[in-house]
Amino acid sequence: MAKPTRRYAIMAPGLFATRSAKTAHGVIAYSDDPTVAVIDPDHAGKRVRDVLPYLQSDAPIVATLDDALRYEPNALLVGVAPPGGALPATWRASIVRALAARLELVSGLHQFLAADAEFATAAAASGATMWDVRATPPPRLFTGAGYDVNARVVLTVGSDCAVGKMTASLELTRAARDRGARARFVATGQTGIAIAGSGTAIDRVISDFASGATEELVLANAPDADLLFVEGQGGINHPAFAPVTLALLYGSTPDALVLVHLATRTHVEDFGTPLLPLPELVATYEALCATVKPAKVAGIALNTYGLDDGDARAAIERASRDTALPCDDVVRHGPHALYDAMAPAFADKRLPVR
Amino acid sequence: MAKPTRRYAIMAPGLFATRSAKTAHGVIAYSDDPTVAVIDPDHAGKRVRDVLPYLQSDAPIVATLDDALRYEPNALLVGVAPPGGALPATWRASIVRALAARLELVSGLHQFLAADAEFATAAAASGATMWDVRATPPPRLFTGAGYDVNARVVLTVGSDCAVGKMTASLELTRAARDRGARARFVATGQTGIAIAGSGTAIDRVISDFASGATEELVLANAPDADLLFVEGQGGINHPAFAPVTLALLYGSTPDALVLVHLATRTHVEDFGTPLLPLPELVATYEALCATVKPAKVAGIALNTYGLDDGDARAAIERASRDTALPCDDVVRHGPHALYDAMAPAFADKRLPVR
Repeated sequence: MAKPTRRYAIMAPGLFATRSAKTAHGVIAYSDDPTVAVIDPDHAGKRVRDVLPYLQSDAPIVATLDDALRYEPNALLVGVAPPGGALPATWRASIVRALAARLELVSGLHQFLAADAEFATAAAASGATMWDVRATPPPRLFTGAGYDVNARVVLTVGSDCAVGKMTASLELTRAARDRGARARFVATGQTGIAIAGSGTAIDRVISDFASGATEELVLANAPDADLLFVEGQGGINHPAFAPVTLALLYGSTPDALVLVHLATRTHVEDFGTPLLPLPELVATYEALCATVKPAKVAGIALNTYGLDDGDARAAIERASRDTALPCDDVVRHGPHALYDAMAPAFADKRLPVR
Repeated sequence: MAKPTRRYAIMAPGLFATRSAKTAHGVIAYSDDPTVAVIDPDHAGKRVRDVLPYLQSDAPIVATLDDALRYEPNALLVGVAPPGGALPATWRASIVRALAARLELVSGLHQFLAADAEFATAAAASGATMWDVRATPPPRLFTGAGYDVNARVVLTVGSDCAVGKMTASLELTRAARDRGARARFVATGQTGIAIAGSGTAIDRVISDFASGATEELVLANAPDADLLFVEGQGGINHPAFAPVTLALLYGSTPDALVLVHLATRTHVEDFGTPLLPLPELVATYEALCATVKPAKVAGIALNTYGLDDGDARAAIERASRDTALPCDDVVRHGPHALYDAMAPAFADKRLPVR
């Protein structure tokens, strides 16, 4: 989707190096929009690369919004949730100052900043705009219109939450473009939306409309695209989040699936539910799709984070052997080999069961 | 749950005999709270039994709210959605008059009447209360606490929407009570909630919290109960509503399932997706449960509405033979035979997969 280019200042005071800054990290790693400065007094004077080498960014880390303004950002991303939930006074003051400086306010918080009276007043005064990436579109039921798009839809499905579905979708989109396909990443969670510049946080949609909101994303992204890589969510045997997983599985009307797994993960985080073995995961997702619109798993994106090179290679070979599917780590080894191995499966347009 | 006894006037002008009055019909058929009058000028002067014999009610149908007040209701149920969505002026006037007369306003509408300024003013003036049955509790994630309740949980699962899951749950609750069990119906949809006097419309909960809201209902109803019959929703291969189905399947932490099917239904309404054969439905629901907390289908409640007695009997025998499970129509033949056949399966408390 065409979008104005943002030059981000990212606000993450005291939190930039923590997991709660994952939206900030995702934007730095994957957004087409550059990050020109990060605000975190704990690391002021360093560069992003000094704190988090894997992000491969030389953006400066500064102590205050005023310091950040010297790098001429045109957008302020609130990329972390404040501890305790409520916005601290210092954050509020910085946000108001950013709006006064006519920066676009982009927020991934649960609470919508556009609904805050103080921020709304500041934005109105300067003409600044605000984008709450978790805000959802009006309720819309699934209609089946997604069955008729020309683009082929590839959905990442996972063994669990936080195993690398967004990253796999982004990397495969990049590989597809390198191979000449008109490919598009379709974001379904807050970090992906901040990266892509559009999308819907399906986990925040009323459950009756979650499938319909997913279909709406496919309809919006399909024109002028050959391939859509839809960011998956959750896992099919996750007691809390599987409903979102199923909304994506049916609502995105996929033609093919890519299974994503973190090699070191054995149980659903927080609940102790054992993860299904990869062949059972493949069978479960394919069996559900077979009842609505058939889709097969085309390959496995195995996240080998935390393993050494030898163990990673062994895990990839084992996963491929156990499932008889192509498998690779798209971060460690890049996405092109896995993309090329799966590409024949992305060439088919499948029809719904009727 | 203890609740004050309501004496309902039901507002259904021009619509009482239509399918859009299904909440009204459900309350008349199943609520412990009596309906003392129905407001529908199209049938004024008749009794409910004259218009809809199967409801077996002698409640009078009257033309206006003032006529209904002569039967001394203490609650007004808005049991139908107005055509076009917006409340017609005559409905508004009747609702205001009911609130002025201190009737409790009970509404199953999507739009919350308690949020309406005119109704709020009228209610505040008289001291009347308002209950929007679709209003949802604060967001709450699934925690796993449902695994530890002592009550055994029985969930109805279906081949599709609108096949009789609520009715089956209500009838089986009745049979269980007749057999001496402390059984409770747990409502998850608007009609069930209006009947039970409590519950949560899971389809209106934000999808991240749908499983948690279901678990919360189990936790609230389990104390002092032996058996919970949780009202199911949707069907596992329904493109739009399966996410709600899965939220109930995992969130209610069931010990046993009862499969409900409408014998004459072959495809998902609206989408053309073929319904799965009963044995495949049994296998699909059991396979998903097996990954989180095992639960087996204990029997089949076959809705034979529209068939003659011979065809109904044949359909029941065929379903039982195909699945090797007890099967009956709990409306046509009453729930006791099916309950007795399934009761051994309701005696076990199962443990989650760990």
